[in-house]
Amino acid sequence: MEFHARPIFPKGFSCASRNCGLKPAARDLSVFVSSVPAAAAAVFTRNRFPGAPVIVGRELIANGRLSAIVVNSKVSNVGTGETGILNARRMGIAASAELGVRADEVLMSSTGVIGKQLPIELIENGLRGIAADLTDDPMIGAEGIMTTDTRPKALSTTIGDVTITWVGKGAGMIEPNMATMLAYIFTDARFDAPTLDRMLRYAVEDSFNMLSIDSDTSTSDTCVIMANGLGGEIGEEAFAQALRAGCIRMAEMMARDGEGATKLLRARVDGARTRADARRAAKAIINSPLVKTMAFGADPNVGRVLMAVGKCVDVEQDPAKIAIWINDVPVFADLCRTAFDEAALRKLLAGDPVDIRVDLGIGEESATAFGCDLTHGYIDENAAYYSS
Amino acid sequence: MEFHARPIFPKGFSCASRNCGLKPAARDLSVFVSSVPAAAAAVFTRNRFPGAPVIVGRELIANGRLSAIVVNSKVSNVGTGETGILNARRMGIAASAELGVRADEVLMSSTGVIGKQLPIELIENGLRGIAADLTDDPMIGAEGIMTTDTRPKALSTTIGDVTITWVGKGAGMIEPNMATMLAYIFTDARFDAPTLDRMLRYAVEDSFNMLSIDSDTSTSDTCVIMANGLGGEIGEEAFAQALRAGCIRMAEMMARDGEGATKLLRARVDGARTRADARRAAKAIINSPLVKTMAFGADPNVGRVLMAVGKCVDVEQDPAKIAIWINDVPVFADLCRTAFDEAALRKLLAGDPVDIRVDLGIGEESATAFGCDLTHGYIDENAAYYSS
Repeated sequence: MEFHARPIFPKGFSCASRNCGLKPAARDLSVFVSSVPAAAAAVFTRNRFPGAPVIVGRELIANGRLSAIVVNSKVSNVGTGETGILNARRMGIAASAELGVRADEVLMSSTGVIGKQLPIELIENGLRGIAADLTDDPMIGAEGIMTTDTRPKALSTTIGDVTITWVGKGAGMIEPNMATMLAYIFTDARFDAPTLDRMLRYAVEDSFNMLSIDSDTSTSDTCVIMANGLGGEIGEEAFAQALRAGCIRMAEMMARDGEGATKLLRARVDGARTRADARRAAKAIINSPLVKTMAFGADPNVGRVLMAVGKCVDVEQDPAKIAIWINDVPVFADLCRTAFDEAALRKLLAGDPVDIRVDLGIGEESATAFGCDLTHGYIDENAAYYSS
Repeated sequence: MEFHARPIFPKGFSCASRNCGLKPAARDLSVFVSSVPAAAAAVFTRNRFPGAPVIVGRELIANGRLSAIVVNSKVSNVGTGETGILNARRMGIAASAELGVRADEVLMSSTGVIGKQLPIELIENGLRGIAADLTDDPMIGAEGIMTTDTRPKALSTTIGDVTITWVGKGAGMIEPNMATMLAYIFTDARFDAPTLDRMLRYAVEDSFNMLSIDSDTSTSDTCVIMANGLGGEIGEEAFAQALRAGCIRMAEMMARDGEGATKLLRARVDGARTRADARRAAKAIINSPLVKTMAFGADPNVGRVLMAVGKCVDVEQDPAKIAIWINDVPVFADLCRTAFDEAALRKLLAGDPVDIRVDLGIGEESATAFGCDLTHGYIDENAAYYSS
């Protein structure tokens, strides 16, 4: 599937972003809007301590209809009690008034530090007049939702008459705090909300749900799709595959731009007895601090991959049947490390991405997980004072 | 319970260590021996890719009797196939010949890099004559099993007429590789092997099984207890409690000396519905990279603790009932961050240990987990070439 060289919006979608005073100068407030109400679906964090926007968002998305999304960065509105819920609603109401859409058709997100009340007046002031700034460039909206992401993230593709656009942010913060994954997907295809919901869950399963920067699950993770129908009909299967491919690409972009990351780390597990086993083992590999530092150091330390698979005590496996490749070089089989060329492999490992493949050799199921290396940058970003 | 200011051995135990050429100069080979055969029990790594010494060790310990333990550092004998099994046996046989004990009463351990064959001739040569070096100082044996530990680890206590001595190594490597936990416990109390096994499992449950430096499970973890009976009888309950207390202390020593660690991080979870819930939540807190970097940065970032508890989707919890303390300062309750003195808390967080306590407020069960902060030292130790 081809992505556009420069991301565009589907018919009827636009966005704007501004600095409203949460950050010193950078854009910290974005709106995304459809010219007509769109069918919508969303998935949210499974963290048992969800932020106020997630609590309100779950309620809103039940209608299966959205016209706009409003997002601020810098403060996450999590751990803020009843006041937080009220502030989330105020944020949606302010955006609806400015954009001329129904208040129950505006989804809100907040990303940033936890446990501080949202400076809601700054946001309400910031939204005033923002409709005049609406543009057809998704990168403008992507900028306003960044925390410590080093670059805004958007991509788009056209299939038949319809376009799909992804806008996301990954793991990074203005001030050290927890990474939040936000992904907004816009399309002018025509689908009802239940179909969107089904396709979104299918796409998220192999993309964002297989992404891990540091194994910590944000209280704000949100992935939303809006379909306004202005581009007309397209086959569900073709659309679902394109949606999945774009979500995987966006997950890779987020992984590569993870906190302190210098490269994308991918782990593919084949030959598993069950899909759940394949997923669990692939996740264990990309989450292993020792595998992650190996990727950073470009060190072909095969034992760490063995360890990461072996520590999954719930994954059916037989050491004698396991084979391992790093960037397509066979490094382990028949219970022994193979005699690979260390210098050559070290060169491959110094590149981006680092691809680890494990064949469990006992079944037909596969899964791929997306992560990044663990570097000094991660320590630096997360050890500084959050309140500074 | 009081530990001796300087660790001693129980009656009949002694040890020796040497450099046999695996490391450039430091001690890399230790033996621990009892003057009479001892009842013994052991627990090993749950990693599905166990090292050769673990495979052989499981077989040996089935007899419930040991006279000696032989350990090398620098090379772990993992991922070495049939040759590795033979080398593990040769190591035990060489030690038995030198120490004049039965070969099936010598347990062997290896710790260090994975996937390289053991230089068994160096070890066999190194063992020759080592009996002449036997000493009553446990620290000498502790030195020979160090990898990147910054200090040898041993402790002892006397209850009634019997003494218990713990010798261990934690998370660290001469060359970056996976951390291995080895703990050897010696006592002159008289117990049979099944009783030892029961008491060891009880002690390990709340100590080494609640220890995590980096969430990666070694292929070599081994914890053994030998009881030679020379000190006579003692009540099982008193002994079991002392054994547990010493294992917890040793786990704390290992955590505090984890790779790159500057401090001990403890997480206690109270008020859980089940013990399994309490254990899972406590482990999630000390394993969270964001909590670990918070401890390193002395940053009172309460949201990260919320996140770490909330991400345990399998732990029964109700955000409204959760209260959190950091070093005894209340920081969260009633769904909101409390108004604590940030500067004062920052000072407490800069100390050692950092204690996080979470009350789930819905039950009676508790657990404590032991970990350490995540620092630049961890990256440095693990990103360098393992083969250099």
